Amino acid sequence: MTPPPHIPLNRPRLIAPGPVEVSPATLLALAQPQMHHRSPEGRAKFLETRGKLSRLLGDAFEAVIVTGSGTAAFEGALVSSVPAGAKVVNASAGKFSERWGEMAARLGYDVTSVQKPWGELLDAGEVAEACKDAFALTITHSETSTGALHDLQAIAAAARAVNPDLLIIVDAVTSYGVAELRAADWNVDIIVSGSQKATATPPGLGFVLFSPQAEARLIKDTPKGFYLDLERELRGQKQANTPQTPAINLVHALDASLDRLLSVPLEVLWAEKKRQNDALIAAGEALGCRSWASRPSPAVAVLVPPEGLGGLQVAAQLASMNQRALPGQAPHEDTVFRISTLGYADRYDALSVAGILEDAFTALGAKFERGAAVAAAWQVISS
Amino acid sequence: MTPPPHIPLNRPRLIAPGPVEVSPATLLALAQPQMHHRSPEGRAKFLETRGKLSRLLGDAFEAVIVTGSGTAAFEGALVSSVPAGAKVVNASAGKFSERWGEMAARLGYDVTSVQKPWGELLDAGEVAEACKDAFALTITHSETSTGALHDLQAIAAAARAVNPDLLIIVDAVTSYGVAELRAADWNVDIIVSGSQKATATPPGLGFVLFSPQAEARLIKDTPKGFYLDLERELRGQKQANTPQTPAINLVHALDASLDRLLSVPLEVLWAEKKRQNDALIAAGEALGCRSWASRPSPAVAVLVPPEGLGGLQVAAQLASMNQRALPGQAPHEDTVFRISTLGYADRYDALSVAGILEDAFTALGAKFERGAAVAAAWQVISS
Repeated sequence: MTPPPHIPLNRPRLIAPGPVEVSPATLLALAQPQMHHRSPEGRAKFLETRGKLSRLLGDAFEAVIVTGSGTAAFEGALVSSVPAGAKVVNASAGKFSERWGEMAARLGYDVTSVQKPWGELLDAGEVAEACKDAFALTITHSETSTGALHDLQAIAAAARAVNPDLLIIVDAVTSYGVAELRAADWNVDIIVSGSQKATATPPGLGFVLFSPQAEARLIKDTPKGFYLDLERELRGQKQANTPQTPAINLVHALDASLDRLLSVPLEVLWAEKKRQNDALIAAGEALGCRSWASRPSPAVAVLVPPEGLGGLQVAAQLASMNQRALPGQAPHEDTVFRISTLGYADRYDALSVAGILEDAFTALGAKFERGAAVAAAWQVISS
Repeated sequence: MTPPPHIPLNRPRLIAPGPVEVSPATLLALAQPQMHHRSPEGRAKFLETRGKLSRLLGDAFEAVIVTGSGTAAFEGALVSSVPAGAKVVNASAGKFSERWGEMAARLGYDVTSVQKPWGELLDAGEVAEACKDAFALTITHSETSTGALHDLQAIAAAARAVNPDLLIIVDAVTSYGVAELRAADWNVDIIVSGSQKATATPPGLGFVLFSPQAEARLIKDTPKGFYLDLERELRGQKQANTPQTPAINLVHALDASLDRLLSVPLEVLWAEKKRQNDALIAAGEALGCRSWASRPSPAVAVLVPPEGLGGLQVAAQLASMNQRALPGQAPHEDTVFRISTLGYADRYDALSVAGILEDAFTALGAKFERGAAVAAAWQVISS
């Protein structure tokens, strides 16, 4: 099929679950004349941004900003709070949660995996059972590879019930700022995320937020890392005195992004992002897709295409329309495709994505009633 | 009614018929390290951009770039091609066409007005009748105040038939690059536009494009203008040697915008912008509005709201949702509201605007079936 001739006029969009669309205010902050992280202004901005990261969590956790990806932040959390050789339970059901198990094993921890197949939900009882004699639990709240939002509240409660001292480290990379996450109420200790997700900032920063209890348990001079020694980082960052050079432009950019997210109560933010993602799922369902996850994360719609279509094909078709979505992740590249309005995008952009999906599925020869996906998405948005 | 709490999370949009949304590539070009218009690179860029302006017209007209608004460009066209005291017929049916009559009278020309009420179409016979003994005809192709696209082809043919030497000066401010415009075939002489319309560049540049015949008739040393002496400008600009300092950053930005528009054949560009605007009109009709113009310009949907609602109210509601549309223009501020995807916006953005309109009309208490405007717009887009 010849592509429609108007395609070069399409506005390119990032509709993947990170990196995401970034706001003009954030880009402008990034492109300011080079600031210095040791100047009074640079230090003040650093402290201000740390404070806003805590406000986006909604709890009095202490934030550390790591210059690195979410993986760096997670490694920092692990090596700075779990002593050498300790037992770590890793709950996994997808690519990202599997990575934390690999990381912990590589670093010499005594790792027990509690696994579910990709797309399924973790079982609170199973996880708790494994945690009885563990030092730490590593768990992914929103699994970006499958679209599942695990029931962190229930799992943390069950695990804590059998092991009150358990250190619960949460990969909240794509849930922080998007999904309901009540770290203090749910009694989890460490929250990890990254800049290119809900905070709609270019990649390059990871965040770790420590509860007061977790902070008290931080290891001094961890032998498992120097750059990622977050005990030292947190001590320094509290004084706006980073031991290492931070990506200060990204910090300024992040600060601008946080202002936008904090312009509404967290409950409004969470509801709005959920509404957008529900609209994407509804659009997909109208095209014969189904959500891979039974409890979908509001960060990403991970959709199994109808019989005869593969995730790689759908993502390639979207790319040919200048719309950057993603297929699944290895080894499930072709099982699903993944679309998202996680970043700087509003409910009307979610409606656009429904239209884009309809056009993509039409180009792929899928059978459906024209208008069904747009109507389904709009029904969710406008109800 | 309390505004919905998610409003601060809406992505602000310019949905007015200029200034318009500007692409990231264009903004980046604008923000380059300060270039110099007398450097070899600055001069090369200037020539390249002039050439692209001609390609966007599709004819071998010579372009002059004026640093100023569309009004400056129009004044330059007039004083540089119409001798003092000559008879000028001004065809008007709205705010902008009225302005050209005022301008010509102020400048001492012998002005005859051929008027139609706002929203109506000019009559080719009437205009031609008045042109019999005129030097020039000034006419607006797309009347941004009423949304009418006048039948320039028919009017020019009728006027030319009774006066072969008539100089036809066209205000194409919002039609150039948007609406079908075949300057050479339609036998018009001078085309005027501005940067903040179809070329999706910040305001600050006007364009005048001269046919070979019009160029030959340019007046040397016009006594009616110095800055706007386009005979001198054209001579200089052909050599990339502007007599006055041009807004060179805007020229670089314009060049980037033109690349996008020229990435498809003109017919594809025109069809795409018409489709978008038809979708906006269809959305409006589903909400009980009607197009003010019977022959709508693809640059802007000028909509008469249903009984009980005014244009000012609709525009204010949209503004409260962070969406910048416009009411009518004085003295018809409240008669209509005006929405547009004229600039850097694609068909999926037009779908977004349909959703935005539905939400605005819901907030204003209008009665309609939820989903109707979105469905109507999508029907136009996807058909």
